[in-house]
Amino acid sequence: MRIVVDAMGTDNCPAPDVEGALLAARDFGDPVILVGDETLIRKELAKHATAGLPVEIVHAPEAVTMDDKPATVGKAKPNSSMHVGMNLVKNGQADAFVSMGNTGAALSIALLNTLRRIPGVKRPALTGILPFGNNGQTVLLDVGANADCRPDWLAQFALMGSLYTRLTLKIDKPRVALLSNGEEESKGTDMLREALELIRPLPIHFTGSIEPKDVLKGGADVVISDGFVGNIFIKTLEAGTSTLTEVIREELMATTLSKIGAALARPAFRRVRKRIDPFEIGGAPLLGINGVVIIGHGRSNANAIRNGVRQARAAVSGGVIDAIRDGLARSSVEAED
Amino acid sequence: MRIVVDAMGTDNCPAPDVEGALLAARDFGDPVILVGDETLIRKELAKHATAGLPVEIVHAPEAVTMDDKPATVGKAKPNSSMHVGMNLVKNGQADAFVSMGNTGAALSIALLNTLRRIPGVKRPALTGILPFGNNGQTVLLDVGANADCRPDWLAQFALMGSLYTRLTLKIDKPRVALLSNGEEESKGTDMLREALELIRPLPIHFTGSIEPKDVLKGGADVVISDGFVGNIFIKTLEAGTSTLTEVIREELMATTLSKIGAALARPAFRRVRKRIDPFEIGGAPLLGINGVVIIGHGRSNANAIRNGVRQARAAVSGGVIDAIRDGLARSSVEAED
Repeated sequence: MRIVVDAMGTDNCPAPDVEGALLAARDFGDPVILVGDETLIRKELAKHATAGLPVEIVHAPEAVTMDDKPATVGKAKPNSSMHVGMNLVKNGQADAFVSMGNTGAALSIALLNTLRRIPGVKRPALTGILPFGNNGQTVLLDVGANADCRPDWLAQFALMGSLYTRLTLKIDKPRVALLSNGEEESKGTDMLREALELIRPLPIHFTGSIEPKDVLKGGADVVISDGFVGNIFIKTLEAGTSTLTEVIREELMATTLSKIGAALARPAFRRVRKRIDPFEIGGAPLLGINGVVIIGHGRSNANAIRNGVRQARAAVSGGVIDAIRDGLARSSVEAED
Repeated sequence: MRIVVDAMGTDNCPAPDVEGALLAARDFGDPVILVGDETLIRKELAKHATAGLPVEIVHAPEAVTMDDKPATVGKAKPNSSMHVGMNLVKNGQADAFVSMGNTGAALSIALLNTLRRIPGVKRPALTGILPFGNNGQTVLLDVGANADCRPDWLAQFALMGSLYTRLTLKIDKPRVALLSNGEEESKGTDMLREALELIRPLPIHFTGSIEPKDVLKGGADVVISDGFVGNIFIKTLEAGTSTLTEVIREELMATTLSKIGAALARPAFRRVRKRIDPFEIGGAPLLGINGVVIIGHGRSNANAIRNGVRQARAAVSGGVIDAIRDGLARSSVEAED
C-alpha cells in the first residue's frame, strides 16, 4: 500500500509533515510518498535518519495556504501539492492522500479538479472524528462541506458514515443517529423530520435522533447533520472546552495554595489532555470522494500525521470506496441529482 | 412593582420557589405574589420567618409538570399556576411572571392562552443568558421556540434582543451578531444570508456574523440564531463543559497525589463553578410575549429564583414591552404574518 502525504499541509510545514511521514514509514513499513516542494522536503529529510525507510518524493511547485479561497484555488494553483497528490491516487500510483492543509481547498480540489465524486454520491461530506464515545471515537458528518442540505443528502451521509465506521473503525453494526435538539419525533426541523423518513428504510443500524449530551456520552457511533449544524456543533464543543480550560487555569493560578495543588495534579491534567486530544485520531475522511482522502488539523504535530496515515491505511484496506459505490447503487438513496 | 412567582415551577417545588420569593421580597422590598397550591405554599411559608415581608398568595388548583406536552397543556390544565400567574399580569394585577417550570409549556400558555404576543411580533423567542462575555452576560435568542425560522423572524429577534439588552442589562449600544460558522459573507446558510440583509438596515448596532469561539470571548452582547441552532449551541456548550468537568474529576481522583492537589485547589474550582453558574443570572425572558415573563431552569435553587425576580424587575422598569411594541412599529421588520 502506498500513501501520499502532503508535505505542505500543516501551519508549520514541512517540518511536522515530513517527520510524521517518516514515523508512518517506520511504523507501518509500506511506502510513503511526500508531495510538495522537493528542495524543502530534501532539506527537512536531511535532519532525520532515513536510511532504509520507504520514502519517496514527488515534486509539486505550488502549495495551498490557509488563506486560499476554496472556490478559486483549484484553478489558481493547478500544480499544488494537493492537486499532484490526489492525482497520484486518481491515476493508481498511490492508494490514499493525507493532508493537514486547508480543508475547504482540499474538498474543492478533490471534488472539482482531481478525484471527483464516487458514482451515485450527491454531495461529499466532511467527516470529523470526536475523541468521545464508547470506542473513544464518534464519527460525525457533515461537519462543514454543505451548509444547506437536502434530506436525501443526509440519508447518503448516514449510509456512507455507517460503511466507513464499520469497515475502517471496525465497529460492527455502528449505531447511526441524527443530531437534534431532542429525541422525540416532534423535535428537529422540517428537513430533519424528512431525513428521518428517508434514513429509516436504509440497511443500517439507525437509532433515531440524538441530543448533544448523548453524543458526548457515546450514544451513537455515527452522528449525522447538515454541514452548518455539524460545524456549529464541533466549533461550540471546542470553544466550550477551551473556555472552561482557560477559566480553570486562571483560577488555579490565582492563589499560592491552588498553584501548589495544580502542580501536584499536573499528571492528571496531562491525562485529561491526552484523552481529548484530536491528534491521537490524526484526521478524518472526505466521504463521497472517489478515493481515500484524509484531512487533519493545520496545527497537527508529527504524531497526528502518522495517525492520519494509519487512518488512511485502514480506509484503504477496509475497501471503503468500493463499499460506498456498491452500497449507494443497492440502496434507495442513490440517484441522479 | 408586583412580581408573580410560580410556586410550582422547580423540579423540587414548592420549597426553592417559595424560599426564593421570600429572598426577593426581603431584598427588593416590593410585593411578591406566590401562585400555586395554596395549602402547599402555606405549609412551606410556615418554615420561614415571613413577618413583615410583602408576600401574597393566589391559589391555582393545577400545576404544569416537565412531562406535560407544550402543545396540549394549555387546554389540558386551564387552571395551572402558569395560567393564573400570567393572567394576573395580563389583567394588570401584577407586572411580571417568573417561573422555573416547563419552558415549552410556559411559552405555549403565554402565546396561545394568556398574554399572547406583542402587536407586530411574528414569533416570540426563547432567550438564554450565557454567563460569558464582556459584561458576564451574553443574550442569546432564539434558543428553542422556533426550530424552523424565516429570515424576517430573525430580524425581529435582533431588534427585540437589542432593546432587551439595552433597557434591562443596561448595555449601551449592545453589539448584535448572527451565530454562524464563520465571519465571511460566504459562510452560513441561505436563510442566514437573507437574514443578514434584513438586519443590516435596522436601528441597532449590528456587527455581522460571529463564530461560537468569539461568542464565548464576549464578541457580542446579543447573539441571534434560529431556535434549532440556538438550542444545539447551548446544549453542546453545556454537554461539552460537563463532559470535560467529568473527565477532569475522574483523572484527579485517579491517584493519591492528584487527590491532594485537587483538595488544595478546591477553592479555585469553587470559583470556576461560580463564574459559569447559570443560577447567578436566574432566568431569561420569553421575548415577544405581551408581558414580562422570565423562565429559569427546573433545577434552580432559591437564589436563582431571587435572581429571576431581579431580572423581571429590570425588564419592567426598563419598559421593555412598550419599547418592543414601538420599535417594531417604527422598523421595517414589523408586518402581518
